[in-house]
Amino acid sequence: MPRNAIGREIPKEVDGRVLKPFKGAYVDLKPGHFAPMVMRPAKWGTSKLLPSIDDAFAKTGLKDGACLSFHHHLRNGDGVLNMVMAVAERRGLKGLKLAQSAIFPVHEPVCRLIENGTITSIEGSTNGPVGRIITEGKMKGTAIMRSHGARSRAIQMGDVKIDGAFVAAPVADAYGNANGRSGPAACGPLGYALADSMFAENVVVVTDNLQPYMVTPPIISQACVDYVVKVDSIGDPKAISSGTTEVATDEQSLKIARGAADLVDALGLVRDGIGFQAGAGGASLAAIGLLGELMKKRGVKARFAHGGITKDMIRMQKEGLIDWIIDTQSFDMESAQSLLTNPKHAEINPDIYANPFNRGQLVNMLDFGFLGATEIDIDFNVNVNTHSDGYLLHGIGGHQDVAAGAKHCIIVCPTRRKNWPIVMERVTNVTTPGECIDAIVTEEGIAINPARDDMLEKARAANLPVKDIQELAKIALQKAGGVKPGEPEYFDRVVGVIEWRDGTVIDVVRQLKRKGG
Amino acid sequence: MPRNAIGREIPKEVDGRVLKPFKGAYVDLKPGHFAPMVMRPAKWGTSKLLPSIDDAFAKTGLKDGACLSFHHHLRNGDGVLNMVMAVAERRGLKGLKLAQSAIFPVHEPVCRLIENGTITSIEGSTNGPVGRIITEGKMKGTAIMRSHGARSRAIQMGDVKIDGAFVAAPVADAYGNANGRSGPAACGPLGYALADSMFAENVVVVTDNLQPYMVTPPIISQACVDYVVKVDSIGDPKAISSGTTEVATDEQSLKIARGAADLVDALGLVRDGIGFQAGAGGASLAAIGLLGELMKKRGVKARFAHGGITKDMIRMQKEGLIDWIIDTQSFDMESAQSLLTNPKHAEINPDIYANPFNRGQLVNMLDFGFLGATEIDIDFNVNVNTHSDGYLLHGIGGHQDVAAGAKHCIIVCPTRRKNWPIVMERVTNVTTPGECIDAIVTEEGIAINPARDDMLEKARAANLPVKDIQELAKIALQKAGGVKPGEPEYFDRVVGVIEWRDGTVIDVVRQLKRKGG
Repeated sequence: MPRNAIGREIPKEVDGRVLKPFKGAYVDLKPGHFAPMVMRPAKWGTSKLLPSIDDAFAKTGLKDGACLSFHHHLRNGDGVLNMVMAVAERRGLKGLKLAQSAIFPVHEPVCRLIENGTITSIEGSTNGPVGRIITEGKMKGTAIMRSHGARSRAIQMGDVKIDGAFVAAPVADAYGNANGRSGPAACGPLGYALADSMFAENVVVVTDNLQPYMVTPPIISQACVDYVVKVDSIGDPKAISSGTTEVATDEQSLKIARGAADLVDALGLVRDGIGFQAGAGGASLAAIGLLGELMKKRGVKARFAHGGITKDMIRMQKEGLIDWIIDTQSFDMESAQSLLTNPKHAEINPDIYANPFNRGQLVNMLDFGFLGATEIDIDFNVNVNTHSDGYLLHGIGGHQDVAAGAKHCIIVCPTRRKNWPIVMERVTNVTTPGECIDAIVTEEGIAINPARDDMLEKARAANLPVKDIQELAKIALQKAGGVKPGEPEYFDRVVGVIEWRDGTVIDVVRQLKRKGG
Repeated sequence: MPRNAIGREIPKEVDGRVLKPFKGAYVDLKPGHFAPMVMRPAKWGTSKLLPSIDDAFAKTGLKDGACLSFHHHLRNGDGVLNMVMAVAERRGLKGLKLAQSAIFPVHEPVCRLIENGTITSIEGSTNGPVGRIITEGKMKGTAIMRSHGARSRAIQMGDVKIDGAFVAAPVADAYGNANGRSGPAACGPLGYALADSMFAENVVVVTDNLQPYMVTPPIISQACVDYVVKVDSIGDPKAISSGTTEVATDEQSLKIARGAADLVDALGLVRDGIGFQAGAGGASLAAIGLLGELMKKRGVKARFAHGGITKDMIRMQKEGLIDWIIDTQSFDMESAQSLLTNPKHAEINPDIYANPFNRGQLVNMLDFGFLGATEIDIDFNVNVNTHSDGYLLHGIGGHQDVAAGAKHCIIVCPTRRKNWPIVMERVTNVTTPGECIDAIVTEEGIAINPARDDMLEKARAANLPVKDIQELAKIALQKAGGVKPGEPEYFDRVVGVIEWRDGTVIDVVRQLKRKGG
């Protein structure tokens, strides 16, 4: 079987889809064109309001095999994906493709729809229970996974053709202008639905908060919207924040956080005018807190923090440590509320954030980014999709994007979780190639990618506990009990494809043989 | 010669361009596709900053025959169009096409460039001195005129292919994010450059106010920008406001204003929740002032005013008469400043405002719109492009768009100007077909389009001075001296094409025979 540039076996074809093997992080960024968007002039004087989701299916003519898209700004509080898919099931639709930007435990009903053939393939982040049954081979087709930036690119270039985009809108007017800033389910930004709204054949705004014309800013614009449906509730914003968006307080995480803050300091990045991204991991958030203390002491101010925004960043901004909050998604209600009233809290969309094929992404402006890992190997390849037992449980999020863009990409993670080593010889699956990873900070020390002499020198000059990554892997194995866990056993069948940002395939996920099954 | 749906002679072809005759205001709105936008991935770590406009020409490879585009947010204060075109001339470029969104007296240097062959055709509003020499046949090719909405449509659909878009940016960062809200040349919105930035092959931001990353909101986005050039000054914002944006105070205009306000009142539109647009004419602005008094008296509040925003609307908003200001361009410095700080002053772009091929335009939400006219005829056809002497002196602006969209489109104008009748048997050129014009208010009375029984009934019920438009035309002729002015004499050659919103041709402008010449 052919192997890609980092040695992963990539089949030539999966489920009728030709796979282009990954060639390197920056190789396949070639000029191209957007897919031509659909123009459908609205007839003058026509109302876009429909009484129900069911009417939206009827009016748009969505049928078997259609690709339906959803955004994840409401995260584990989203009510719209389940609501729309229940209608699809009631209407007896089969063979649908789900093109969500991410999926959460709340979307467990999707499992049944996969098992009964309502949904047969996915183009989108497959987290939690849905990922679990896909790994077990219960979906007829394949799950294609992309980073946030790559999803935007793929929609814009026509790799993903959306028949019906359903936009959960915390506030909208009857002509289709919508944003996420107010209403009972306010979620902050709404940009993950932007590419969908521009390129989908049919666009339906679903809102529980219909306001008089004109809702501004029109993050989702009337110029793209076919129909608007008013429902009782689009979800529960309290469930936006999940465990991963709380600052860590345990000793190990704090040790890692201290290491990460020390590394950033050693790199000379505690200074005026920097831009950074911290992700949602507890240790990352703790590290940012420590950096904040340093900044305060030295009287310096970051120019911007991008995220996934948490209440802690809003607090740091209030303390004068961050000039601008640049927000692609709010990770908690406090951040969502800040977007409405804080003049230095700006919303951007994932295209500007991370689309690798446009003329400039925000990630390229990051002085450093903290990222997590479920596994990292001695070539610095990082896995965030699968666990060591082979289960596909997480989406890519912005991992590939930040890693490829940030001037210093720092993985912040423990050497092991329970009896599973995290730093290891060979990751179960590769999400992000080692080429893009500059350093890893663990509770046992720091390893720096040999390609970054500059960073190594600075870290050593600051007397940081720098270790070879092979050494970290050894320690990890030791601490995890000294016995290498058995590798998962797979069938040949590919159930998931992990695309790199440019649409090439960095790895595939195969159907897992269940223990004893 | 073939005639279009309103009886105007339209040649089959002009200058190699096939002309589609106008079929009716709402006929040719067919589904279609956008032109595929160019994707050109920015190389990681590359700076977009260039030392000069000349370097931008060198880097982008703009050459003879290229189409260069500009926006008009700085109106008569714009310094960038002249600056860029001077560089083009110095570089010896020939046969360029100018695709500006509008042009002003300050752009008179363009005349010389037309006469020496640097510029040979235009796709954009041709006002003032440039229009004058085009009417006299001094440009080699043709001028194609479109409304603001149609310009956005034409760029999006590939009717206008821009090679180099130059964006005059009051504030920008080095990665290309820009808006018009701050800096020495703050002009408010910047949306007229949006379609250009998305669809042009090369996009150059020209700014006199370079700020640290990230300038938000990115009305012009880094995702589209190739280069950024810092210059000393992009223009003089004091010259944004021109004579047409001051409230009229003369007796005749006040009489017209009173008539317009009375008509709106008679139509039942002085009530809560309406949306309107007033344009920049002095009498319109005075009428809005009168309506404001009425609204105050009755304790009602408009939901939104759209414009071309003037300081008077900002004042009305402060007085509690307008909930939201929706802004496509600021007509004076006060309005531009308001956009930066007023949370209920929102910027939208001309696509949302008026592109007839998208799924919904703001103009469709207007309860009424006041528009001007240089001429209006007994079929309610309106001319805003040429004067009765045949000279092409004005752009279309949003005239066609508001007329086609607003629920009540009301022309506000005198019956004559000097010795020229304004209401007349047959307009010199048609910009907007009578089909879209619902009423005209003059100092001699009001005429209502026979197609609008509903309006006629209400106006009569309110005892307004309703007259037949033929009668108004007679009065106009009488007051203008009683002698019909001679019609302009033309050569056969077409020098200007007036497109309707959908790309069909509503009229052409022919080369004028100069008196005695």
